[in-house]
Amino acid sequence: MQSYPKLLSLIESHIAENQFYGSPQNLYDPLNYILGLGGKRIRPVLTLMGCELYSGTAEEAIHAALAMEVFHNFTLIHDDIMDKAPLRRGNPTVHEKWDTPTAILSGDLMLAKAYECLLRSEPQSWSALFNLFNKTVYEVCEGQQMDMNFESQSLVSETEYLEMIRLKTSVLLGCCLQTGAIIAGATESESRKVYNFGTDLGLGFQLMDDYLDAFGSAELVGKQTGGDILSGKKTIMMIHASKLEGEKLNKLLTNSELTDNQKIEEVKAIFVQTGADQYLKQKAGTYFNDASKIVSDLAVNADNKTAMLALLDAIKNRSF
Amino acid sequence: MQSYPKLLSLIESHIAENQFYGSPQNLYDPLNYILGLGGKRIRPVLTLMGCELYSGTAEEAIHAALAMEVFHNFTLIHDDIMDKAPLRRGNPTVHEKWDTPTAILSGDLMLAKAYECLLRSEPQSWSALFNLFNKTVYEVCEGQQMDMNFESQSLVSETEYLEMIRLKTSVLLGCCLQTGAIIAGATESESRKVYNFGTDLGLGFQLMDDYLDAFGSAELVGKQTGGDILSGKKTIMMIHASKLEGEKLNKLLTNSELTDNQKIEEVKAIFVQTGADQYLKQKAGTYFNDASKIVSDLAVNADNKTAMLALLDAIKNRSF
Repeated sequence: MQSYPKLLSLIESHIAENQFYGSPQNLYDPLNYILGLGGKRIRPVLTLMGCELYSGTAEEAIHAALAMEVFHNFTLIHDDIMDKAPLRRGNPTVHEKWDTPTAILSGDLMLAKAYECLLRSEPQSWSALFNLFNKTVYEVCEGQQMDMNFESQSLVSETEYLEMIRLKTSVLLGCCLQTGAIIAGATESESRKVYNFGTDLGLGFQLMDDYLDAFGSAELVGKQTGGDILSGKKTIMMIHASKLEGEKLNKLLTNSELTDNQKIEEVKAIFVQTGADQYLKQKAGTYFNDASKIVSDLAVNADNKTAMLALLDAIKNRSF
Repeated sequence: MQSYPKLLSLIESHIAENQFYGSPQNLYDPLNYILGLGGKRIRPVLTLMGCELYSGTAEEAIHAALAMEVFHNFTLIHDDIMDKAPLRRGNPTVHEKWDTPTAILSGDLMLAKAYECLLRSEPQSWSALFNLFNKTVYEVCEGQQMDMNFESQSLVSETEYLEMIRLKTSVLLGCCLQTGAIIAGATESESRKVYNFGTDLGLGFQLMDDYLDAFGSAELVGKQTGGDILSGKKTIMMIHASKLEGEKLNKLLTNSELTDNQKIEEVKAIFVQTGADQYLKQKAGTYFNDASKIVSDLAVNADNKTAMLALLDAIKNRSF
């Protein structure tokens, strides 16, 4: 299997060579703009890895890999409207740079373009690919709706929170790996295993994202930390800490005499004091362990297993 | 070919039997809500007609027909957000009944569901069906973006306006007919002809829609007439009348001493005086004639030709 940097550079070239053109230009520009903001490209890289894992070539899966990245970026455009987010990767969001109607419509176009990219894969895989992709699209929408519903829900259980991040984030990582595996012609049992590896990886990934949003370095993460705390997001740390210090947290977050930074620091102190940060890390660790167990069970050669474990380690230990 | 009422009742049953279910419920409810508001169902009926025209059965095309109606209703949900429309078919729009984030997300889900419906057609047609459908989705988005861009554009030419309605409305009618023809196994030349019939029909249909928005009976049309006039929409009548009475129209529309009804009546009088209404009707007539010529050129039996001409007549002479 080729290394992450090599696969990443394949993806970057493919994105650069496949700009979207059409008229009116202000409908098409947002697609290239958001794809041009970079990011880790973990989804398309996972797609290529899933293919190489089963002796397929990165070339066979490159269109599907782009489909996954295009789909992911479509969700970013629309989520940013729903969340009223002004910035994405340090740049103005699409609805800020253009306007909300254009952002809605460019997003719609982008979702259709994801289907087109996937259609460029070999027709013998279409049935399996589209069944998986459609299911994933529905689940990602369901996860986003759950996330929005949580805002007006006074109590969110840990189970509900984990289900939300499973749908909103982790199923797409599973879908990417399985998409690659399907293209390489892996058996159904293997492609299902690799899907589960992806969802475990994704759950750990998202939990670490929540951790970094509070405890990460703003410089490394590339955005102001503490955003989840200030918006009162019911993350697993907040849910855990609220069980012990719910009243204190509530008072803190609604105290208008405190600055934002004071709130963030005090809430973080409660997270530490209640062990919420360690609880999150332990939970994430369980998912990473489950993922690692799946790797040992895959019917692939030792080198490929090593590569998958290295990926797991990199995501586990990331600081941004 | 079965009659419009018979095909319509097939569609209505299929919609009723294929409600969308899932969780969270507030993500799925809007899909059933908007599909339940009724409408002429012209798009799915055209899909079935396109199939029966070439000796296919309505059953073969029923999933694709639903795909077209689901796609159309997705565009209604998102267009209504962009246009800030409070009502759709006399009922609250989705973003009014729920909220804008839910309307964006339900729309996204609905677009993906349209792809799923289309995937229920026989795999041998997938390649042709998806190429056509994707192209149509892009064009419909382009048409909507043009329409929005026109709002801030001081001058819109007749050519630009016609291109906008071709993209926003008429290509989907062409796509519906061709989708049915493809499923029935029509030759490429025939399915292309039937597509052109659909776009001509759609252009005439949309022009008559513009006419009815000004001159129709509010009771029959089912909504307040004059909406286009008040919103200053650059329809073909407005473009035509502005050439002769641009200054007068401008003064009228910006005169705050006039009531809405006075504005509508005075603008309509200018449309009549400048012959804009007749110009529109003549233009629409040309498209209907072109469509009729295509029918005579189709390689289908005489009964089917008669049925297509009857459809054309019904749309030509509709008063709502």
